[in-house]
Amino acid sequence: MTAAYLQNLDRTAANHAPLSPLTFIERAAAVYPNRTSVVNGAQRFTWAETYARTRRLASALARRGIGKNDTVAIMCPNTPAMYEAHFGVPMCGAVLNSLNTRLDAETIAFMLRHGEAKVLITDREFSATMKAALALVDQPILVIDIDDPEYDGGADIGSIRYEAFLAEGDPAYAWQPPADEWDAISLLYTSGTTGDPKGVVYHHRGATLNAISNILNWGMPHFPVYLWTLPMFHCDGWCYPWTIAERAGINVCLRRVEAKACFDAICANGVTHMCGAPIVYAMLVNAPENLRAGITGTIQGQVAGAAPPAAIIEGAERIGINLTHVYGLTEVYGPATVCAKQDEWEHLPIDRRAERNGRQGVRTPLQEAVTVRDPETMQEVPWDGETMGEIMFRGNITMKGYLKNPAATDKAFAGGWFHTGDLAVTHPDGYIKIKDRSKDIIISGGENISSIEVEDVLFRHPAVMNAAVVAQPDEKWGETPCAFIELRPGAKVTPDDLTTFCREHMARFKVPKTFIFRELPKTSTGKIQKFVLRDLARSASAIE
Amino acid sequence: MTAAYLQNLDRTAANHAPLSPLTFIERAAAVYPNRTSVVNGAQRFTWAETYARTRRLASALARRGIGKNDTVAIMCPNTPAMYEAHFGVPMCGAVLNSLNTRLDAETIAFMLRHGEAKVLITDREFSATMKAALALVDQPILVIDIDDPEYDGGADIGSIRYEAFLAEGDPAYAWQPPADEWDAISLLYTSGTTGDPKGVVYHHRGATLNAISNILNWGMPHFPVYLWTLPMFHCDGWCYPWTIAERAGINVCLRRVEAKACFDAICANGVTHMCGAPIVYAMLVNAPENLRAGITGTIQGQVAGAAPPAAIIEGAERIGINLTHVYGLTEVYGPATVCAKQDEWEHLPIDRRAERNGRQGVRTPLQEAVTVRDPETMQEVPWDGETMGEIMFRGNITMKGYLKNPAATDKAFAGGWFHTGDLAVTHPDGYIKIKDRSKDIIISGGENISSIEVEDVLFRHPAVMNAAVVAQPDEKWGETPCAFIELRPGAKVTPDDLTTFCREHMARFKVPKTFIFRELPKTSTGKIQKFVLRDLARSASAIE
Repeated sequence: MTAAYLQNLDRTAANHAPLSPLTFIERAAAVYPNRTSVVNGAQRFTWAETYARTRRLASALARRGIGKNDTVAIMCPNTPAMYEAHFGVPMCGAVLNSLNTRLDAETIAFMLRHGEAKVLITDREFSATMKAALALVDQPILVIDIDDPEYDGGADIGSIRYEAFLAEGDPAYAWQPPADEWDAISLLYTSGTTGDPKGVVYHHRGATLNAISNILNWGMPHFPVYLWTLPMFHCDGWCYPWTIAERAGINVCLRRVEAKACFDAICANGVTHMCGAPIVYAMLVNAPENLRAGITGTIQGQVAGAAPPAAIIEGAERIGINLTHVYGLTEVYGPATVCAKQDEWEHLPIDRRAERNGRQGVRTPLQEAVTVRDPETMQEVPWDGETMGEIMFRGNITMKGYLKNPAATDKAFAGGWFHTGDLAVTHPDGYIKIKDRSKDIIISGGENISSIEVEDVLFRHPAVMNAAVVAQPDEKWGETPCAFIELRPGAKVTPDDLTTFCREHMARFKVPKTFIFRELPKTSTGKIQKFVLRDLARSASAIE
Repeated sequence: MTAAYLQNLDRTAANHAPLSPLTFIERAAAVYPNRTSVVNGAQRFTWAETYARTRRLASALARRGIGKNDTVAIMCPNTPAMYEAHFGVPMCGAVLNSLNTRLDAETIAFMLRHGEAKVLITDREFSATMKAALALVDQPILVIDIDDPEYDGGADIGSIRYEAFLAEGDPAYAWQPPADEWDAISLLYTSGTTGDPKGVVYHHRGATLNAISNILNWGMPHFPVYLWTLPMFHCDGWCYPWTIAERAGINVCLRRVEAKACFDAICANGVTHMCGAPIVYAMLVNAPENLRAGITGTIQGQVAGAAPPAAIIEGAERIGINLTHVYGLTEVYGPATVCAKQDEWEHLPIDRRAERNGRQGVRTPLQEAVTVRDPETMQEVPWDGETMGEIMFRGNITMKGYLKNPAATDKAFAGGWFHTGDLAVTHPDGYIKIKDRSKDIIISGGENISSIEVEDVLFRHPAVMNAAVVAQPDEKWGETPCAFIELRPGAKVTPDDLTTFCREHMARFKVPKTFIFRELPKTSTGKIQKFVLRDLARSASAIE
C-alpha cells in the first residue's frame, strides 16, 4: 500500500462541498435567468424571479428567528408557494414538513405537535381544517396565509400573508449551504393505516442524489415542461422540485388533478413529462376526446403505485403518453425501482408487454441496491419468479430514519437493509414483481394467494374500472379471496360472469368466492384502504 | 432548534453508501447485460462481458497481492483494455495511473518511480519506450503486455499477456466498494512545461459526480454511442469511461485519431457523441468529402482547449457536428466550465455566435463554483468583460491534491479555491472568457496584450490553419507580439497581408511585429509549446 495516498490529500474548502439540491436553483438562476420556472394559471415566473422569491422566503424566516433544524410545515396544493418552500425553507437551515392536504385536523395536529413546527404556511383552501388543527396544538406557531389567485374561498387564519412575508425578506439573501450534507432537509409523515404516522426525515445528500437519479432514470433532457399531477407533499414530489430546477425546466402548477385542467395545461405549455398514480392516467385515458384537441407531442409519464393494467398502458400510448412504471415508498424518497424497458419488449403483443412493463423492475440509477429477501434469514430469494420474499433497499436514497422513533427506525433498518413490508418475487432477469403487502396475503387452505395477482386478472375484464381483493374468513379454507369491484360507467356484469372470467385466468383456489360491487374507500394519499375492505369482507362473511 | 433532528438519525449500512463510479458498470451489466459495451475494430463486447472482464482483472490483481492504494500504471491508447482498467483496477482498491502515450522514457520512468507503480499494463505499440523506461526504474514492477488485435508490431516486454492475466481472475469476483468515497481512484500526471510532472489524485466521490455531471451537462440520453477521440489518459477521459457505463452506451475505441478511421467508426456504429481538441474537429471538417459518405445523424461534440474559431464551429455544423465548448484542467477532472448555449444565440450571425460559443462559460452542473478573482486580494473581478483575474474553481470535482507534494497542493488551493493559472474576464452575463495563461500575457509599452485575443483574430484569416502568439523582447516596447503561423495546405499569404488584416481587427499595439511561418511544436497532449516558441521568438529578435 502506497502510504502516500493517505497523506496531505485531505478535504479542504477548495475540493469538498456538501451536496445540496439548493445549488440547482442557484445555477438555474445564474445561467438561465430569463427562462420560465413556474406557471400557475395566468402567473408566470422566471428562474431569476423564483430564486429571488426563495431567498426572500429564507431571509424572512431567518429574520423571524427560524434557522437550523427548525420545522416549517406547509399545507398547500401544487402552487408556486409550495414549489418555493422546497428551496426557501432549507435555505435558512430549516426543515420542510409538507402536509398531506387530504388529512383531517386531528391527524395534522399530531404532526404539528410531533414535528414541533414553529411555522405553518397554509393555503386558504384548507383554512377550516388548519384552524381546527391549530386549536389542538399548544406550541406557538407563526401562521402564514397563501393567497393563491387560482383559488377563491377559504379565509385567512394567520398573522401575515405569504406575499407580505416575502416582502420582509432580502432577495439577495446570502443563504448558506448545509454544514453537512447529512443535515435534514425535510420531514414527511407516512399515512399509516394503523398507529400514529411516522415522520420520515430526508437529508441534503439523498435529496440531491434522488433529484439527479430522476434525470438519469428518464434520460431527461434540458428544459423539460413538467406537469405537477403528483402532489409535492408526496415524498417532496419524488424530489422533482429539485430535479426541475437542475434542468431549468418549467413547473406547470395544478391545484386539482382533473381531466380538463390537465389537458388545458398540457396544451398551453407543451408538457413533456409528468408523474402520477394509475388513477391519474386512467382519468386522462377515459376523458372525452374533445378535451385533447390541439395536443400533439409525446409525454413521458411515470406511474407508481399498483402496476398499470394493459388497458391503461395501451390507452396512454393511444393518447401520446409513454408510461414507465416505478415503485417506491416515502422512506426511499419516492420511486427507488424502475421497470427499465428493454428493446425486445417493443415487439411483444400489448398484453405481454404490459406484463413486462408492470413489474417493479430494478434499482433506479443512484439507489445502491434493491433485493428480495427472506426477512427471517436475510437470504436473497432465488431468481425464479416464484419464491416470495420482502423487498428491501439500501443506499444513499434511503431516509435518515423516523423522527423521535428509534425503535421504528431500528426495525426498519434491521440487518442493514430498509424493509418495505412489500412481498415480491425476483424474475430470472433480475426484475422484481410485487405480489403483496405482507399483511395483504390471503392464506387459503394453506396456500398463499397474492391479492395483487387476483386484482391484475380482474383489471383485465372490460367492465372493471377498479378492483381490490382481501381475505375473507372462511370456515372451511380459513380464508378465501373477497373481491370489491368498481365498475366502469354504464358497464354491467354479474358475480357469475366474473367467476367464469377468473377461472379462465387463474388457479381455481385463487378465484374470489365473493364479489361486492361498490366504490372503493381510499386513504388521503389515494391508496385503497384494504383495512376497511377487510372489515366489510368480515361482515359480509358473517351475514352469509 | 429541534434537537430531535440530531438524535438517532445516523448513517447506517441501510442508508449510506460511498459514492463510486464502479456501481455504474454493475448496474449496466445487471440491467442491460446483452447491450454492446465496447467496439474495437472487429471485436465487440457486451456489458455482461465487459463487467466479467473487469472483475477478472480486479481478481487477478488481488491474487497477485495488489490492493488498497497500490498504483497500477497503464500505457495504452483507447482500446478495450484501457477501458477495462478504469473499472478493474479500482475494483481491487488500487489506483489507476494512466500514462500519456506521447511521453518519452525518461519522463515515464519519473512517473513510475514517483507513483510507486507496482504493476504496469502496456500496449505493444509502446514496447520500446516502456522497455527503456523500465530500465530506469528500480522497484519491482509486474509488467502485463496488451496484445490488441488492432495493432501489429512492437514486442512483449513483460511476464504475462493481458488475456492470460485475465484468465487468472474470477469473473464473479466479489469486489468491494471503497471504504470511503474520498479514497483515491486514479493518479494522473500533468504535463508541465517546466519542472517535474505533478501527480493529480482523483477520488471516487469526484469521479462519480463528474461522470454524472457529464450526463447532466449534455442532457445525454440512454445508450449513447461514444467515439473515443479524446485519449482516456487525459483526466481519465474526462470521466467518460464511467459516464458511458452509467448510460449503458457503446464505447467505440480508436487507436489513432485519423479522419478516415473516425468517419469509418462513425458510419459503422452510428456515433452520437464525441469529445476532443479543436484540432480533431478541424481535421474532420477539412477531410475529403467522400470520407463522410453514408453518415446521416447529428453528432454532439464537446470541444476543449482553445476556443473553437468560427470556421470550425461552422464547418462542424455543416458536417453534422453540434459543438459545445468546455474548459477545464486535469486538477478538476477535465471540463469544469461549459459555454451553455442560450436560445437567443441561434439567431445571431455565425461570427457573433462563434464569439458567444467561444467563451469558457459557466460552471458545469455539479461543479460547485467557478470564479475569476484577483489572486492577490482574492476579490472577484467586476463582471465587465474587461477586468482580468485568475480563474478559480471549488467543489467536489476538484482533485484531492498533488501526490507527495503538499507545497504544490497548498499553493494550488490557497484561499480555499483551486488556482488554474489561467487569466480571464467575466462578461456581464456571468460567462467567463480566458484571456491568457498567466505566463502567456504580453506586456507591451505597459499595456497587457492577450496572446489568445491576437490568435483569435489570426484564426479568422482564411489562409491560417493554426496560430500561436508569444512575447518577443523589444528594445523600445519591452515586449511585442510575435506570431507563429501554420498555413492551410496550398494557401499563400505574406506578413504584410496579415499585418493589414490584424490592423483591421485589433488595436494597433496588439498587432504582431513579427510573423514566422512554420509548423507549431506541440506537447505530448497536443498543446502548443509556447516555451519553445518563446525561445524561437527570442532568437529571431536577436537575429534582427
